Amino acid sequence: MKSPISFVIFVIFLFFLVSSAYPGMKRQHYPCKNLVFYFHDVIYNGKNANNATDAIVGAPQWGNLTILADKFHFGNIAVSVIRAVFDDPITLDNNFHSTPVGRAQGMYMYDTKNTFTAWLAFSFVFNSTEHKGTINFIGADPVLVKSRDISVVGGTRDFFMHRGIATIMTDSYEGDVYFRLRVDIKFYECW
Amino acid sequence: MKSPISFVIFVIFLFFLVSSAYPGMKRQHYPCKNLVFYFHDVIYNGKNANNATDAIVGAPQWGNLTILADKFHFGNIAVSVIRAVFDDPITLDNNFHSTPVGRAQGMYMYDTKNTFTAWLAFSFVFNSTEHKGTINFIGADPVLVKSRDISVVGGTRDFFMHRGIATIMTDSYEGDVYFRLRVDIKFYECW
Amino acid sequence: MKSPISFVIFVIFLFFLVSSAYPGMKRQHYPCKNLVFYFHDVIYNGKNANNATDAIVGAPQWGNLTILADKFHFGNIAVSVIRAVFDDPITLDNNFHSTPVGRAQGMYMYDTKNTFTAWLAFSFVFNSTEHKGTINFIGADPVLVKSRDISVVGGTRDFFMHRGIATIMTDSYEGDVYFRLRVDIKFYECW
Repeated sequence: MKSPISFVIFVIFLFFLVSSAYPGMKRQHYPCKNLVFYFHDVIYNGKNANNATDAIVGAPQWGNLTILADKFHFGNIAVSVIRAVFDDPITLDNNFHSTPVGRAQGMYMYDTKNTFTAWLAFSFVFNSTEHKGTINFIGADPVLVKSRDISVVGGTRDFFMHRGIATIMTDSYEGDVYFRLRVDIKFYECW
Repeated sequence: MKSPISFVIFVIFLFFLVSSAYPGMKRQHYPCKNLVFYFHDVIYNGKNANNATDAIVGAPQWGNLTILADKFHFGNIAVSVIRAVFDDPITLDNNFHSTPVGRAQGMYMYDTKNTFTAWLAFSFVFNSTEHKGTINFIGADPVLVKSRDISVVGGTRDFFMHRGIATIMTDSYEGDVYFRLRVDIKFYECW
Repeated sequence: MKSPISFVIFVIFLFFLVSSAYPGMKRQHYPCKNLVFYFHDVIYNGKNANNATDAIVGAPQWGNLTILADKFHFGNIAVSVIRAVFDDPITLDNNFHSTPVGRAQGMYMYDTKNTFTAWLAFSFVFNSTEHKGTINFIGADPVLVKSRDISVVGGTRDFFMHRGIATIMTDSYEGDVYFRLRVDIKFYECW
């Protein structure tokens, strides 16, 4: 660093270093925010209308709108598709009776013939002291895999414009009546 | 600024300032583009097949596929889920008879027991002199709240790769036959 | 470049140049990754339950859950809505019998009265030597247009946080039983 010229070169070098670090290039791979929630789904089975947070709203011709079970356990049924709509409480721990901090609203469908695979599109809606706003999710969910990733495609209020990855784990599964999912949300774009 | 060394320090400081300003950090919170549209939904009620832009395509076992009203007004129905598909004209003002600049296509569902909450996923499709291309939306919509935000997750052509927030307001609601939404789209990523 | 002052000015100029190049401004418009896939959809027609990869799960009151054809060919049917769920093999070329590299899972719906327009939301799920992870899509698809664009809103694993545009072309269409789509995915955000 003996002359002004060397400074100019150094500065230009820095300019390209900074420039190259951004669009279209590798971005940081550690989360800027990390949240864990549980959500609780009580499947409508034809009898529990007062407790159910989930209802099947579409099924193919050979299906029916009450019980899930048959469609998966009969090997001779070729295309197994179930569409369900849910409105589930979200809690901070895995206790169904904890005070909900929000609601998970949206839909899932089981859409494969031979494996238990779900496709999900839903929102978390918060209106509590901890969090306000929404987080929006979309992705495929092979439910028998222990943990699987879906996309966090956007959010509002506290989660304004956020993007990230949510890792979903089935925390509990009680027959065809109840399941609990652990959702580990890692935001990589925080705004 | 008396010596070359102080320059180096200054330049390094600038480097970190610029670096820190971007990924994973706060991004700008004022929109790079702002558009307002109205869209008009004529609900199928069993009689208006020629005018309807909306049709209910799924309902739980106790529901039917024509009239919305009952499901909300009967307190003894536990899970109220409606899935509807729409193809609605988009206009620049709140007049149903204005020349449409595009179509809103997608679905919504009412998915909560005790409140009027909708979940939406849809696209705006433009092919007019004003706008060409599509805008894609997803989000939860508590319909009784005056204004509520959903995510703009992407777009094409004029809205290539855009992201943002859309604020939805119910501009008019005529029973179970017609509603009009005002959509105020604020893009924060414009490309 | 005769004095330290001119350096300071030059450096500040560079700072604004770099700053202005990023958020809220034009980003690069050439893809950082480009992939082409084909996916194959065998529509359930009431007889091919063992081969079908697609099933209609919702239709309006006047519809039925087996055959698509009628709804489009009868001019007196006002609102034509079909919701289908699919789980389709993805191949690298246009041969239905090629080894699949993944599955396309999700849903589409035909939602317009007078034109063949679909609305899509689906995921590509890869678990092969070529690709691992998922890619998530959403968008409107006017099926009679030769090529049309939808949004790539996120991804996982190999496609971690990716965004882009997918151009869809109907590569083959055999009546109401089979269609094949060519999907040209251009990622503009690669991470």
